[in-house]
Formats: sequence, structure tokens, C-alpha cells
Amino acid sequence: MTLFAKSEYLERLNRTKDRMEKAGLEVLVVTDPANMNYLTGYDAISYYVEQAVVVSLEDDEPFWFSRRMDTACARFTTWLSPQNLVGYPEDLVQTRLKHPMQFLASVMKERGLGAKPIGLEMDAPHFTPRSYEVLVGSLPDATFDDARLLVSWVRGVKSPAEIALMRKAGQIMKRVMETAVDQIRVGARECDVAAAILHTQAAGTQEFGGDMPSFPPLICPGEKASAPHLTWTDDRFSDEMSINLELAACVKRYHCPLSRTMYLGKKPPKRLTDTAKWTIDGLTAELAAIRPGVTCEEVDQAWRRAIAHTGIKKESRSGYAMGLGYAPDWGEHTCCMRPGDRTVLRPGMTFHIITGIWMDTWGFEISESVAVTETGHELLTDVPRELIIKG
Amino acid sequence: MTLFAKSEYLERLNRTKDRMEKAGLEVLVVTDPANMNYLTGYDAISYYVEQAVVVSLEDDEPFWFSRRMDTACARFTTWLSPQNLVGYPEDLVQTRLKHPMQFLASVMKERGLGAKPIGLEMDAPHFTPRSYEVLVGSLPDATFDDARLLVSWVRGVKSPAEIALMRKAGQIMKRVMETAVDQIRVGARECDVAAAILHTQAAGTQEFGGDMPSFPPLICPGEKASAPHLTWTDDRFSDEMSINLELAACVKRYHCPLSRTMYLGKKPPKRLTDTAKWTIDGLTAELAAIRPGVTCEEVDQAWRRAIAHTGIKKESRSGYAMGLGYAPDWGEHTCCMRPGDRTVLRPGMTFHIITGIWMDTWGFEISESVAVTETGHELLTDVPRELIIKG
Repeated sequence: MTLFAKSEYLERLNRTKDRMEKAGLEVLVVTDPANMNYLTGYDAISYYVEQAVVVSLEDDEPFWFSRRMDTACARFTTWLSPQNLVGYPEDLVQTRLKHPMQFLASVMKERGLGAKPIGLEMDAPHFTPRSYEVLVGSLPDATFDDARLLVSWVRGVKSPAEIALMRKAGQIMKRVMETAVDQIRVGARECDVAAAILHTQAAGTQEFGGDMPSFPPLICPGEKASAPHLTWTDDRFSDEMSINLELAACVKRYHCPLSRTMYLGKKPPKRLTDTAKWTIDGLTAELAAIRPGVTCEEVDQAWRRAIAHTGIKKESRSGYAMGLGYAPDWGEHTCCMRPGDRTVLRPGMTFHIITGIWMDTWGFEISESVAVTETGHELLTDVPRELIIKG
Repeated sequence: MTLFAKSEYLERLNRTKDRMEKAGLEVLVVTDPANMNYLTGYDAISYYVEQAVVVSLEDDEPFWFSRRMDTACARFTTWLSPQNLVGYPEDLVQTRLKHPMQFLASVMKERGLGAKPIGLEMDAPHFTPRSYEVLVGSLPDATFDDARLLVSWVRGVKSPAEIALMRKAGQIMKRVMETAVDQIRVGARECDVAAAILHTQAAGTQEFGGDMPSFPPLICPGEKASAPHLTWTDDRFSDEMSINLELAACVKRYHCPLSRTMYLGKKPPKRLTDTAKWTIDGLTAELAAIRPGVTCEEVDQAWRRAIAHTGIKKESRSGYAMGLGYAPDWGEHTCCMRPGDRTVLRPGMTFHIITGIWMDTWGFEISESVAVTETGHELLTDVPRELIIKG
């Protein structure tokens, strides 16, 4: 049984075909594992080998293409008919002389797709230059165009069923942050805190379990709070230390990330409490600007205006489209809260609004995961928006 | 402080430069996150944006290249001098009009590397066709060649310090499998078992913590045992069910994976006990064939010979090079135990020897992680090699 109703997958497919037609494409080779999942339901950790979903305007169903042994994974997770699950032989896996994309090209020719205008995801992870060259070289009668992010843009507006999964992730996220706050104490090892967080992520609630977020827990204490993407060590937390936490929960590959900063000790330094106050005010102003019809850059401007008087400098974006994803990504790479991004918000879009400040030897990080509603925004989780002080 | 001594990183760099010279390359652009880590120590979850390590025959140090905010992550984890940490501006992140590889090209030109023979990792997971086209298009005076897996092959033979980390992962792996066997019982939810496994993976031992393996726990019960790469659900285990487990432990990105099959109930079906016996005998024969001087295909033949009389059919490889890696991969993509792979084993090579049998509606999976020694092999973990029956 697939995760969503077949009608929902068909609707996603139709919206994808609409975009293909507008772009003059008759065929689309989808290689981003999140986009493959979105169109077919395929959910397995097999994207370390070449795989694809091929959509043709003329065909009612796309076909799935990966290693033969993973056809079973597709049988359990996709809505596709058996004849549209195409496995390639094991002797094509990770070898220098042959390549799965030659096989894909021959399947496309057999299916009458070898001499069409074909779109490729030129910036998808796991679609390598070699895959590209082999595929293009094996289809001399086709024409190719960059269909970068075509499906990712279709994914941007979530259905009620998708939002429902992200709300479930939000329920787990609340427990994840509570776990972190409970476990972090002077003398505790970072790895034991990570262990407790990971446990909560998977155990979820009594009603539903959780899945593995695309990112491991990021736990950055002390000077490492200046570095945004470190994981954890087996060092111990000490007194008068601040810790940046970027955590998440995930249900069926749909995410709810959340960042908070925690201080161990009675009296956090003024620079930290000041930065926390300004940043939280700025985040709150940014959230207040979210509603259908405004642009991503206008939302970002609300943040920038709110912190203009404080001296806080933040070069990086203050939010990005987020949802369905595989390691190492829950971001959709489509639109961001930053100057110049004129994407117009629509109900059902989901974002990670993140106002992290990374200084030379310290940092402060706070974020919210939100869905755009008909009139404003909905928080996907419910965690106090504060510098967490544990004295 | 870096994970390994600076002398070890320099030795890795020298072996890389030797291979570059033999391949006629003066410059190498390394984009595989595992290879970047191997040469510089860089360890952060930032590989969802464009990044690279650039090695030049003429320079004593490579330079690291990624998003400016992650320069702090490089400061904490690499042995490189500050002038060799090159961050690109935030407005190049995930945008359609500009590209980080233009910036990389300009840095390479400034450093006198713009008109050289340059090697590219044409099959690295996060080096996209667009990155490739932009880089090549921005360096019109350079020549390019495929340096696919060049560093991965250097990584193949592990140092004593690397083997020591993999043995630590092996110690955690033993606890991980014990956790799984302890937690799996009739009525338990798969997600709660996953939670306990994840906890053990990170908590490690009292002496050292663990890190997040590149794969989530694969827990495939009942008919799903026919599918190799599914994760878990919140379904409950039931009586008379067999469960395929492919688990791992990881220390500082070095892995020890391990597979076992477990049966819940008093009397496993004969097809399962027969397959278990034959497969375990085959795995044991394969392990016995591992020693310096033999080829990967000879090791595979030992497995195939041992099961020839049983009727077991296995199309897929029976082992692959394994070690340092990032999600979704601990495999090195260099050599495999399968017909035609004439790679000669050398002491210090590490493999995941996996003899999984995936049938139409069931499966049996068992594996060992091993290091090649001077005279044979060393098991990296110590878990009974059996069908686990919990009645």
C-alpha cells in the first residue's frame, strides 16, 4: 500500500507534465531521490547506485529504474505496475567498463522515448557527470534540456496529506527538543545526548513512529557554536557553555527541523542574551510577514528591518523551502528568504525559517518550521521561542 | 586538533600525488565528501552545497572550498592553513544565475591552476553535471580528464590508525546487534527497535562514543525480507516472522556494518534453516579465502563453490570495499567480490563481505566486516555467525 492515494500521485504527475509541456519537454528523467519518491512513492536507501524515474507525456505511468535487487523495494513502496519497474543487472553496479545509463538509454529506446526532447535534472545530487555523458551519448537522436528543479517546484505546495505528515513530524520534534534540553547537563557526553535525541526521533509517539531525518543531530557546544554543520563528539558539556542545536524530526521522509540555543549556567553573557533577544524579535517579525501573496525577499526584509538597529550581521539566507528529503538534505533548493528571491508565497508551501548567527568564536541559532496558510502561517511544532537557560 | 597526525595526512596526499603524476594530472578537484575528509580531515554535514578540495602537484597543501559559513567547520576539523580555507559568498548558494563553480574556477586561476591538466571525479555523488559544465566552461585554458575514484583507491589500504577506528566501530557494532536481538520481540514496534539501535550506535561505549552510520538501520521483517534497502515502519513484529537486519556502527565516519537474520518463533521453516546453513558455510568459506595476494574474484569464487551444490542463486556481489563514508554510503566503489574483479588484496584493505539471499517473498542475510591482515583476515566485530532464533 502506498503512502498517499493513487489519485494524489496522479495529480502530482499531471502537474509535472504541465510543467514539462510548458518547457517543451516530452520526457523527463528524474534522478533526485526526493523527486523520485514524490512521483512514485519509492522509498529505499538505494541512491548510492544509479537510479531514475522516467516520465513521458504520452504514458499514463512513469517507469522506475534501478538495480534489479531493489525492484522488491519498489514493489513495496510505489504505485507503479510491475512492467514499469525496470531493474538493471548486477554486473552494471559500480564498474568501470559498463554503466547503468547505457541500460536506461536502451530501455528508453525500446519504449519509444529515444528520439524525443528530454529534460534532465542537471543539478541533482547523485546524477553525476559520467551518468550525464553516458546517457546523452547513448541517445544520439534525442535532444536534451536542463529540467533542474522542475519536480522540486511541483513539490513546493504541499497537499493536506503532506502537511498532516509534517505536523506529525512537528509533534515528534517537540519531544526531540525536550529530550535534548533534559539530557544536556554539565558532565554529560555529547554522544549520549545525541543517542537520546536519535531514540526520540525514531520512537516518535505512541500513535505513530518517526523516521530518520536527513541530517544527524547538529550539537555545537562552546566555540563550535561558531560552526554551523558539525555533528557531535564524545566530549563532555561544561559549565558556562552555550550549545547550538539544529535538530529535526521526520515522518515518512517529511521533515520538521528546529534550532535552539541552550546555555548551561546561571548567568549567560550579555552578548548572548542581547543577541537572543534581537534574533528572536527578528524571527518573530519575519514569521509575521509570512502570508500568501508576499515574496520570499519581502519576508527576509522583515527580518533584516527588525535587526537593523542591533548591529547583527547575517550574510546567509533567513529561510528556505523544506519538506520531503533524503540525507543530506531536507531543503528543496527552490526558493529562499533572501534579497532577490521574488518567489510568491502560496498556501501549502513549507519553510524552515532559520535566523542563525555564527560569529568568530560563538553563535546563536533559532528557527521555526512553518506552513503557509490561507491567511498567514502555521507553526509545525510548538517549542518555546527562547534562549534555553539551564542553571 | 585533527583526527589523525599531520604526517598521516601528508602521506595520504603524497600517495594521491603519485597517482596524479602517473595519470598525467597536475591538479585534482576532489568533490566526494569521503575523499575530502580523507585528504584534509574535513568533517561536516555540508555536502548538500557545492564544495571541493583542490590538490596541486606544486603545492604543499591542498585548498578547501565551500560555503563561507562552513569555513568554521573546516577550521575545527582540517589541518589546512587559514589561507587554504576558501569560502564562497552566500549569494552563490542554490541559485539559478550564479554558480559556486565559477568562483572555484576564479580561485584556481588566481592560484595559477587555471591552465593545467585537471582531474575531475566524474562519478562522485555530489558533483553534478551542472557543476561540471560550469567548471569546465570557466577554465577554457585547462584540459580535463576523468580521475574517478583516484583518491578512493588511495583510501583502499587503511593505516593502523584507521583500522583502530574500525575496530572501535566493531566494538559498538557488537552492542548494536545485541540491542536489536534484545528489543525485537512479538508485539514490539519496528520504530522502537530502530530507536534502541540508534541509541546504541551513538552512545557507543563508556570509553568512546559512536557516530551516525551512513545508512539508517535496515529492518526488513516478513515479506519485506525480500527487499534489501527498506528502513522501518511503526508496524509490530509478529510470531513466526523472520527479520533481515543490516546494521552498522560508525566512529569518526569509519564503519563496521553487519547483517544478520532473526526468526521469531520456536520452529523456523526448513527453507530458512537450510538457506542459513548453506549461506553461513559459504560465507565462512569466502572469509577463509581472504589473504594478501588473492584477487577479489577468487574470494567470490570460494563463496560460489561452497554454495554450488545447494541451488542457492545469488546474482549480486558477495562483498565490497568499505570504510570511510557519508550518507548514503560506506562503500568505496572501487573493488567488489564478483566475477571479473581482479583487484589483488593487500594488508589493510577492509571489506563488507555480504552474502544476502533475497527471494520473491523472503530472504536471508548474513555478513562480516573484515580487514585483510599479513596472513589472512581479521573480523572487525565479534557476533555469532548464525540464524538468530528467539522462540
